Amino acid sequence: MNPRNIPLLCDFYEYTMCNGYVDNGLSDRIVYFDIFFRRTPDKGGFAIFAGLEQFIEYVKDLRFSDSDIEYLRSKGIFGEDFLRFMKDFRFTGDIWAIPEGTPVFPGEPLVTIRAKASEAQVLETFALLTLNHQSLIATKASRIVRAAEGRQVMEFGSRRAQGTDAAIMGARAAYIAGCGGTACTVSDKWFGVPARGTMAHSWVQMFDTEYDAFKAFCRTYPKSPIVLVDTYDTLGSGVPNAIKVFKELGITDGGIRLDSGDLSFLTKKARKMLDDAGLTGIRITVSNSLDEWIIRDLIEQGACIDSFGVGDNLITSHSDPVFNGVYKLAAVEDDDGNIIPKIKISECVEKITTPHFKKIYRLFDSDGKAFADLLCLHDEVIDDSQPLTIFDPDATWKKKTITDFTAKELMVPIFKDGELVYDVPDLDDVRAYSLEQVDLLWDEVKRFHNPHSYYVDLSQKLWDIKQSMIRKARNV
Amino acid sequence: MNPRNIPLLCDFYEYTMCNGYVDNGLSDRIVYFDIFFRRTPDKGGFAIFAGLEQFIEYVKDLRFSDSDIEYLRSKGIFGEDFLRFMKDFRFTGDIWAIPEGTPVFPGEPLVTIRAKASEAQVLETFALLTLNHQSLIATKASRIVRAAEGRQVMEFGSRRAQGTDAAIMGARAAYIAGCGGTACTVSDKWFGVPARGTMAHSWVQMFDTEYDAFKAFCRTYPKSPIVLVDTYDTLGSGVPNAIKVFKELGITDGGIRLDSGDLSFLTKKARKMLDDAGLTGIRITVSNSLDEWIIRDLIEQGACIDSFGVGDNLITSHSDPVFNGVYKLAAVEDDDGNIIPKIKISECVEKITTPHFKKIYRLFDSDGKAFADLLCLHDEVIDDSQPLTIFDPDATWKKKTITDFTAKELMVPIFKDGELVYDVPDLDDVRAYSLEQVDLLWDEVKRFHNPHSYYVDLSQKLWDIKQSMIRKARNV
Repeated sequence: MNPRNIPLLCDFYEYTMCNGYVDNGLSDRIVYFDIFFRRTPDKGGFAIFAGLEQFIEYVKDLRFSDSDIEYLRSKGIFGEDFLRFMKDFRFTGDIWAIPEGTPVFPGEPLVTIRAKASEAQVLETFALLTLNHQSLIATKASRIVRAAEGRQVMEFGSRRAQGTDAAIMGARAAYIAGCGGTACTVSDKWFGVPARGTMAHSWVQMFDTEYDAFKAFCRTYPKSPIVLVDTYDTLGSGVPNAIKVFKELGITDGGIRLDSGDLSFLTKKARKMLDDAGLTGIRITVSNSLDEWIIRDLIEQGACIDSFGVGDNLITSHSDPVFNGVYKLAAVEDDDGNIIPKIKISECVEKITTPHFKKIYRLFDSDGKAFADLLCLHDEVIDDSQPLTIFDPDATWKKKTITDFTAKELMVPIFKDGELVYDVPDLDDVRAYSLEQVDLLWDEVKRFHNPHSYYVDLSQKLWDIKQSMIRKARNV
Repeated sequence: MNPRNIPLLCDFYEYTMCNGYVDNGLSDRIVYFDIFFRRTPDKGGFAIFAGLEQFIEYVKDLRFSDSDIEYLRSKGIFGEDFLRFMKDFRFTGDIWAIPEGTPVFPGEPLVTIRAKASEAQVLETFALLTLNHQSLIATKASRIVRAAEGRQVMEFGSRRAQGTDAAIMGARAAYIAGCGGTACTVSDKWFGVPARGTMAHSWVQMFDTEYDAFKAFCRTYPKSPIVLVDTYDTLGSGVPNAIKVFKELGITDGGIRLDSGDLSFLTKKARKMLDDAGLTGIRITVSNSLDEWIIRDLIEQGACIDSFGVGDNLITSHSDPVFNGVYKLAAVEDDDGNIIPKIKISECVEKITTPHFKKIYRLFDSDGKAFADLLCLHDEVIDDSQPLTIFDPDATWKKKTITDFTAKELMVPIFKDGELVYDVPDLDDVRAYSLEQVDLLWDEVKRFHNPHSYYVDLSQKLWDIKQSMIRKARNV
């Protein structure tokens, strides 16, 4: 049904474990897995959570074909009970998640899965892959869009994306975070991300002269044509030819694009040439190895730019190309349905997981700004009409008692007993929601250099459980 | 037919240009495009060319559905002649390429496309996307495999890959360059890249004790089981429990995996513990943020490692995540079929293209080692029984006359008049060929730091044409 759904896109060890669970009578044990990340890309103050819609589709549609089963059988290590389980696979568990587009922070569950061990294990690879990828690109795009300070940013990276899905879903994720559109046509057809584009250098080279090339283009596309002015000599021929053609054809709302050279110098000169010709409505678009730092510098230098086309550095998150979300066991249920918290201990303190079935509150101050997230046990309730004492989970002496705040639960139910209970929002709604939520963060969190560390605190109950489990595991 | 073929995965400007070619009577003009790259990732001495099979499939299968045409029509800017062209689209041109797996160098055409302008333009985005991506990963994998000096390297990065295709095709590209296999199951099913995997930390956590977890696993998989020993305490419990279980079950050919901590220290200690227990046949596998530099350091420090599992850093080419292949017009044909070379001038000297329809010879010395590539006009013939004078195209006074060499043409015909004329090799053959071709490079080219710059020279005829075109364009 969904050509993008590839059931066996899954680490092989998920299947060896599942088969082992079946073999050892553990496959029906109810488990809780959390997906969370440990570090924000580019040392930023927050990430943008994205990819949830694709994860939902995957879970909803996940079925294994006869040829998938035959492939697994051919490996000679899987039992028939497991292969039968795979043949009949349907997800029957529960999933909660933070809505797509939400700004999120290290250490908090983005998704919690409660399911039979065998079902939960099978989801791991695709869940991480798609959420890591889209969150990576949305996070990078958010930085670039914020650097552009209201000017349009277009995602132009398909040709340098790491494969087809990186191009298509990368465009989707970039749009969520505020890009105005993409070069990737199919992302428009599938998701409604506006696709844009006009000409490459090859168009200009196809004509005898640059002037002919521009004139032909503007005749075919008289409505807001954008011509590429740097094939031969930007200020010497490109801009003058563009001006000549725009004037001759009476085009007042088109644009020029510069794809090389010093974009600060050239756009200032080009702007003056356009303005002197009375073409004040002609916009200037630039591209060529842009990222948030270069865009910020260009703006600081007074470059005359209306729109940025960003390629490689956005679509691969070049400066930090990995979002390190992980999928960790947080609890299991015993035969009586009691939740037994589980912890993964590590020599590396920040790799110790936060155990148990949890919920998250986002806390807003009296200005309406978010100032901390609070991880609680699943059945704790925060009453925001009462004072609340929160503390830094790493330096517990850092406490404060807060009043006059609002607590809002972050996670929402997605699947209940295998049924989709979530109304998946339109992409434009996700985008609007995301931009709105980023606005609710303090500027200090949005800073690129050394941003304020937003607090992700643990409730007293959760902290106590975690500490006692660490002590027990280390025999202290 | 091929679910991976996504016709509209294409930059929107390819369509605006095509429609413009149709509108301006240029769509049937025969053009030549070269795909080449300008810079080797990680400042390496060479790249591994990969992704050709997927590009061939794309070209062969490219058709636009009625819904694709409807989507384009809905944009309101495309003419019916163009939409008819799209509806009837078949590639009818010629393509030459360097075989997949070949070591390649900046500035030389990897692929040359001769086709009607409209057809050639439509192929650009997907061609670049897939060749850039797979060449990127193959190039990185080659570095990592060479650093491991014969020890096995497994590609374990699916969960951090930039989307589904990055995981699946990344595993394929890594295998070409010498990885022994992947965690990605579907890459095994589709391409025969051996998929491997045993257990995650969650398996260990599902049992009451680590010992129980290992024992259960080894009972289910008595043949060469690999157990993960770092969930609680690698040397304190993990390795001792593994030894206990291996001895009890008489397992002598399994393995242990370490996924955290100081891998040099821990593997030396673990090796000694295993050997002291008489388990000399138990292998040690490590993972956790490995790359070519860390692997080289571990080997230099005498770490006792039989196999490396490499994740993020391979599957995203973390340290340099973009392969910058471009698609540039090299020539057009006039109405009489004469080839008119085209050049793209740039202020940035290295961005100036090499014009004309070309062929490449790889030159091998009397040791059988490759020492230079020579770009020639398509109809030049190099006679390697005669002395040949080659010169550095950037510093033309650097000349040498060579004798006792062999010249081998690099590019092979792939499509002729739209027909596939190439026998696409099996992946295992591509892999064997690639490893063999890398062996034909001098070690100086394979060095990680400051490798020898392999020469990509121009024939005298080609150099003369290029220089005269530059002079003409700059009016000097």
